[in-house]
Amino acid sequence: MKRAAVILSGCGVYDGAEIQEAVLSLLALDRAAVSYQCFAPDVRQAHVVNHLTGEEMGESRNVMVEAARIARGNLKPLSEAKVDEFDLVLLPGGFGAAKNLCNFAFDAENLEALPELVEFLKAAHAAGLPIGFACIAPAIAARVFGEEGLSFTIGDDAGTASALSKWGARHEARSVTEVVVDEKLKIVTTPAYMFGDARISEVAAGLENWVKATVALS
Amino acid sequence: MKRAAVILSGCGVYDGAEIQEAVLSLLALDRAAVSYQCFAPDVRQAHVVNHLTGEEMGESRNVMVEAARIARGNLKPLSEAKVDEFDLVLLPGGFGAAKNLCNFAFDAENLEALPELVEFLKAAHAAGLPIGFACIAPAIAARVFGEEGLSFTIGDDAGTASALSKWGARHEARSVTEVVVDEKLKIVTTPAYMFGDARISEVAAGLENWVKATVALS
Repeated sequence: MKRAAVILSGCGVYDGAEIQEAVLSLLALDRAAVSYQCFAPDVRQAHVVNHLTGEEMGESRNVMVEAARIARGNLKPLSEAKVDEFDLVLLPGGFGAAKNLCNFAFDAENLEALPELVEFLKAAHAAGLPIGFACIAPAIAARVFGEEGLSFTIGDDAGTASALSKWGARHEARSVTEVVVDEKLKIVTTPAYMFGDARISEVAAGLENWVKATVALS
Repeated sequence: MKRAAVILSGCGVYDGAEIQEAVLSLLALDRAAVSYQCFAPDVRQAHVVNHLTGEEMGESRNVMVEAARIARGNLKPLSEAKVDEFDLVLLPGGFGAAKNLCNFAFDAENLEALPELVEFLKAAHAAGLPIGFACIAPAIAARVFGEEGLSFTIGDDAGTASALSKWGARHEARSVTEVVVDEKLKIVTTPAYMFGDARISEVAAGLENWVKATVALS
């Protein structure tokens, strides 16, 4: 049975992992007979957003503790993720990927990802593991693997695509159900809720294609 | 197009709505071409649980605000739910159903549900709407509709089943992928993560059966 490491970034589209994307990714893995372990960094969320109003709340929450809600408690610190225990790696999206895993939402020009995440992704890549990035998580791929000439998608938003191309990655527009497979780098990307008005069944179809394509490269 | 009201109880299995169940319910509705609106009561959570450790946290969170995370912000107060705008009602599970929507987790003997929820459920029932309860949410059904002779399931836990039968409801054991359809009362129940070790694909299959059976009664 193949094994996937799934890296989450909190719990909630506006300040953490996009919940629906995360759950639908786990479902697609299980349906593909791939076992999974969820991970998240043991860091404070950039902020906490009231998902009803969109306003910032005067609270502090931990990315790992909140992400554990999605994983029914079965989640480990990212620092404990070992490349040789997995066959593939997946990063669903949500603003957490752009706020907690990297700083894209706050300083796109000077994008930097969490050092422990960069280290894990580079080790996985060096070991030949395919890596899937969904929604806005491909921002991290563009930063870390851009200079290797990565082909990727974040949907059809030209501004975001342009901002993410500065490190050498090439953007390709895709619909919500489609993926970009970079076979050379073994990196698979899909827009998911970058199309914010998409139906959940469309996002599920896109994420299923994304999981299947990533598993196929493993 | 049929329309479903989905009532959530927070965001996270141990103190709110079971996230995976909620998302998989929305997916099943969308795949069945049923539109949905999420609701939650505007009340404080009974408590906040650290989902990594299982321990209580010294925090206060609002059920409606947290449930909005699952619904990507598109959630309304339960007090605004109008029966004549919907064709069916669904309540996914999670401890939130037993802690925030009623007090079953704290005082099973003297189970009482939130008055605004009881009022809405009775009005929906009187109007002929089918209602689906998943996981531990059938505890609410057993309390509210027990004296009408409800047939229901919460899986195969004899103790819980017995505790919930005192108001007149009859429990039937079911596996994770199965449902109990009370055709007379138009109430559909399924165990979902009452089987805590179930695979997400099994829970998805059970919830899809549950949604289809509830839609079929509408």
